[in-house]
Amino acid sequence: MIPRLAIIGVGLMGGSLARALKAAGAVGEIVGATRSDEHLQQALAMGVIDRAEATPGRAVRGADAVVVAVPVGSIGGVLQQIARDLGPDTAVTDVGSVKGAVVAAAHQALGARANLFVPGHPIAGTERSGVAASRADLFRDRRVILTPETSTRLSAIEMITEMWQATGADVVSMSPGAHDVMLAGTSHLPHMLAYTLVDMLVREHGLEVFDYAAGGLRDVTRIAGSDPTMWRDICAANREALAGALKSYRADLDALLAALERSDDRALFDLFTRAQQARNQWSE
Amino acid sequence: MIPRLAIIGVGLMGGSLARALKAAGAVGEIVGATRSDEHLQQALAMGVIDRAEATPGRAVRGADAVVVAVPVGSIGGVLQQIARDLGPDTAVTDVGSVKGAVVAAAHQALGARANLFVPGHPIAGTERSGVAASRADLFRDRRVILTPETSTRLSAIEMITEMWQATGADVVSMSPGAHDVMLAGTSHLPHMLAYTLVDMLVREHGLEVFDYAAGGLRDVTRIAGSDPTMWRDICAANREALAGALKSYRADLDALLAALERSDDRALFDLFTRAQQARNQWSE
Repeated sequence: MIPRLAIIGVGLMGGSLARALKAAGAVGEIVGATRSDEHLQQALAMGVIDRAEATPGRAVRGADAVVVAVPVGSIGGVLQQIARDLGPDTAVTDVGSVKGAVVAAAHQALGARANLFVPGHPIAGTERSGVAASRADLFRDRRVILTPETSTRLSAIEMITEMWQATGADVVSMSPGAHDVMLAGTSHLPHMLAYTLVDMLVREHGLEVFDYAAGGLRDVTRIAGSDPTMWRDICAANREALAGALKSYRADLDALLAALERSDDRALFDLFTRAQQARNQWSE
Repeated sequence: MIPRLAIIGVGLMGGSLARALKAAGAVGEIVGATRSDEHLQQALAMGVIDRAEATPGRAVRGADAVVVAVPVGSIGGVLQQIARDLGPDTAVTDVGSVKGAVVAAAHQALGARANLFVPGHPIAGTERSGVAASRADLFRDRRVILTPETSTRLSAIEMITEMWQATGADVVSMSPGAHDVMLAGTSHLPHMLAYTLVDMLVREHGLEVFDYAAGGLRDVTRIAGSDPTMWRDICAANREALAGALKSYRADLDALLAALERSDDRALFDLFTRAQQARNQWSE
């Protein structure tokens, strides 16, 4: 039970966390702050938060734990704004999709008190955003990756771990670098592929291209509806690992194209079979 | 109303067509033939077909219309098997995802009687296959593309058009070449991207990669569960248009990678914004 929780950024992720913790009875008071006053009032009206504060600094005063649920590119700035208002034992976490850059930003913003910061990433979400899209079950049976350092205070790790477990999530730990390489592959690369596909098809065929598409394209491109600012930030924060994933993917695509052009139908069949078998294991 | 319809290949597509036509009261008797006797008996037991025949030739005798619902690579062979058993006015169509290669195969197999062949492609499907996955509503509100030639008999075009309209589909007409370029983009390329992504991720991270994936990757890779034989055939039948789409896509991916590496966040943001806006128009 967290007596008082501050959530900075009450959108899809922050709002869903608030609702999940309330549903689980795992939190006392939830204080919120957001950049947009309109969104903050909406979160208050929906009962997602109990109290709204005008600034992140005011919201975190007296809080036992703080969740910074803003886009990756804004996390450092928020940490700077709240640094002086944190209590001596206040655990701080984030929900950013990149961890190496966030850890660096936390050290810069919090200095010696970066040992209260437990970097986190719940692997959940939808292409929608905003508190209106929030759901109490968003994190149920999902993974949450924490990337603490050896210097991170154990009490803070414990509090943040229990907070996520209360939402029904499965909490695991890894290094920021391992996280960023893994997520470059499983999340950041697929978003790049979807954005690129939609842009190319519409440029070449116009919007009527969607009239000639079935469920396959609809599913492949769903995440191209994701927020451009958020994804620009993720690209900037995970440039190196994402570039590596893109190069690896491009090499594979080149190999497929070469097989296609030399009529190596056996190589194509083998690739499709490997991928189908792997994908079907996920389905089961 | 088609008094007697023969369906060669009673899988997802052939089975769904049979069920849709029966539900609409748009067909009298449905006679089926498949390569696998087990599947044929299953279709008969499910009531998807009314009568089972051991060979395509026997199935089409006395039929008013014939639907060849086998993988693209097998259409030519089936047309050769049925050529001598077709009545003088029997309309013939297929459901293949490629049209240029199928038109060529039809001329080779049917000779002068290729004027009874109305090439067709219902833009619908799932990653599942087999008659057990068939659904009466698979084609409702979906496009069916017909690619008749100027020499195609009008009565045959009319019969096949009305057949598809009875399933709730929207029937449109275009040239085989235009169809193949459009579908290379909207269907064949996305399948290549999904197969390649799954194969690369599992090679680099092992099957546990899926434990660190959210709904985005799940949707993007769903079609990697598709049948490898079917997709090898489609690649072979639409090699040129698919290679063109792959090259175009690769050029766009190169541009994205270059923008990422030179930290051109503005170019990335513009790309994501264009794609998001286009994708959201589809959703509406």
